[in-house]
Amino acid sequence: MSYYRYHVFFCTHHREEGACCANHDAQALRDYAKEQVKQLKLTGPRKCRVNNAGCMDRCNKGPVLVVYPEGVWYTYKNKEDVDEIIHEHLQHGRVVERLKI
Amino acid sequence: MSYYRYHVFFCTHHREEGACCANHDAQALRDYAKEQVKQLKLTGPRKCRVNNAGCMDRCNKGPVLVVYPEGVWYTYKNKEDVDEIIHEHLQHGRVVERLKI
Repeated sequence: MSYYRYHVFFCTHHREEGACCANHDAQALRDYAKEQVKQLKLTGPRKCRVNNAGCMDRCNKGPVLVVYPEGVWYTYKNKEDVDEIIHEHLQHGRVVERLKI
Repeated sequence: MSYYRYHVFFCTHHREEGACCANHDAQALRDYAKEQVKQLKLTGPRKCRVNNAGCMDRCNKGPVLVVYPEGVWYTYKNKEDVDEIIHEHLQHGRVVERLKI
């Protein structure tokens, strides 16, 4: 089994020009996700980890996050989208098709 | 298939106190890995991506990197270790047991 059951990476990279995840509140929404996961007691080995990452080169789909080991990529707009990914995918193992890219 | 065949995350987080990956040249060695992967033309969709990541909470094993979707974790000390991971794992799909954690 993977060290983390769900290892989530938010691109929080900032580009000076063109599309980038940081232009879409990625850092604030990653921080929100990390706090929610902590409050739900989902954090830790065999459970979840939410990390910042550099540019994952899917800028035009941004903001993006990826959930490993599944390798499911999502885009999101706001806290409600993040909540849905946490509730559906991280708590119940169900892919959120409407946000999947 | 995963968007990236191998998605590699180097912890490059810096902690003010205690063990941390940044104290072990993690940023320089991640930059080296990224450049090597580029020179070997391994970069791109269905191929490889090498990213920085925040603290992955395995500080005492650091410096660490993880290769997804396999979820194989490695520690490394120098460019030779990074070269071995690239050559064995990313080019030939073989886990480097001596560096695995």
